[in-house]
Amino acid sequence: MSPAPDDPAVLDLLGLIACGELFAFENLTRDSALSRTLDAKAQLGEIACREFGHFQLVRQRLDDLGADPDELVNGYIPIMNDFHSKTEPRDLLEGLLKVYVGDGIAADFGREVASLVDPETKSFIDEVLSETGQAEFVVPYVQQALSEDPGASGRLALWGRRLMGEALAQAQRVAADRPDLAQLVMGGPGSAGSGLAEFSNMLARLTEHHSDRMVSLGLSP
Amino acid sequence: MSPAPDDPAVLDLLGLIACGELFAFENLTRDSALSRTLDAKAQLGEIACREFGHFQLVRQRLDDLGADPDELVNGYIPIMNDFHSKTEPRDLLEGLLKVYVGDGIAADFGREVASLVDPETKSFIDEVLSETGQAEFVVPYVQQALSEDPGASGRLALWGRRLMGEALAQAQRVAADRPDLAQLVMGGPGSAGSGLAEFSNMLARLTEHHSDRMVSLGLSP
Repeated sequence: MSPAPDDPAVLDLLGLIACGELFAFENLTRDSALSRTLDAKAQLGEIACREFGHFQLVRQRLDDLGADPDELVNGYIPIMNDFHSKTEPRDLLEGLLKVYVGDGIAADFGREVASLVDPETKSFIDEVLSETGQAEFVVPYVQQALSEDPGASGRLALWGRRLMGEALAQAQRVAADRPDLAQLVMGGPGSAGSGLAEFSNMLARLTEHHSDRMVSLGLSP
Repeated sequence: MSPAPDDPAVLDLLGLIACGELFAFENLTRDSALSRTLDAKAQLGEIACREFGHFQLVRQRLDDLGADPDELVNGYIPIMNDFHSKTEPRDLLEGLLKVYVGDGIAADFGREVASLVDPETKSFIDEVLSETGQAEFVVPYVQQALSEDPGASGRLALWGRRLMGEALAQAQRVAADRPDLAQLVMGGPGSAGSGLAEFSNMLARLTEHHSDRMVSLGLSP
């Protein structure tokens, strides 16, 4: 049985998604500022503003559910700050790979958790994350940079592993900080998740999809 | 007689507006990232994305007129970079004052130049800048910060003067770099502008409106 739309676990989940969208917006704009061509700026800015629109939708939904968006979102800010300060791109290429990898992980995570919540929340999450996973435009930029500087591929492959490693580390911190949300995902009394085994499987699937994306860029996973 | 919609002076003007919108977008997002409350982040992000939408409109119009948006906008980037690196806010309060002052100057400048171009370009500029000059939401934040730290008002008053001084310095650089645009604004053969006297009057009006805004914040102009 899935929890109610305003269950604390669901509110925690929506707060996490809102905070993720907000940071994606801020990071994409920084990448836009670093880009040299107007086309790249326009594409990154377009995605950034779409993420911001999603942030506003989640914020509104939390408000409509009688929750306090400030409190819920702010709770994740230290974790997001920690993730982003540990994965500060040194140049635009690292920034673009982070966009691609981060966007992919967010889309995969969204699909996983959407299956654990009530139909109304599921369709809301599907809507908010509908355009996530569309960072494919990054691929030709990364490929072009790699063809100009083949030596960068080793550094980028390491960078990709570090991004995924930090994401998993912060996910464990979220699970420790938010017992309601952890119970929703991992399972437990009255929860739709099916235990630690299923949680491990989920992390394995996220890691596998990440590896596929690295390979599609011509990088070792 | 006003110049044609695709006159080099008009294209220069549209390039300047597009570049200004793009930098406004990037700066507003940085201010959003510096803000502590979700409400401030949401308001700044909302304006940032609106500015980005305007940038896209101008870019599209340049494209439709057969001009090269990359070339036109990129030409202004060194000047914008110079302005922004010389007016790098040291904290959120300086950033917010810069939003308010910069937005006001952009709106005033837009109104001034719109009277010099053909009706089609005028209505386009009016549309693109229609929501510029709406940075009033900044006022209570600045006023609250000043009530908490009255000693900051001297520093902020200086900051406001520096912003206006740098804006005028860069405007002169634009005028020197872009003779067609300068001629449109200042007047000359076949131009709607009415000479150096009118140009000086325009700068005086921009400065006066800037002073009014500083006074409305309780700062000495």
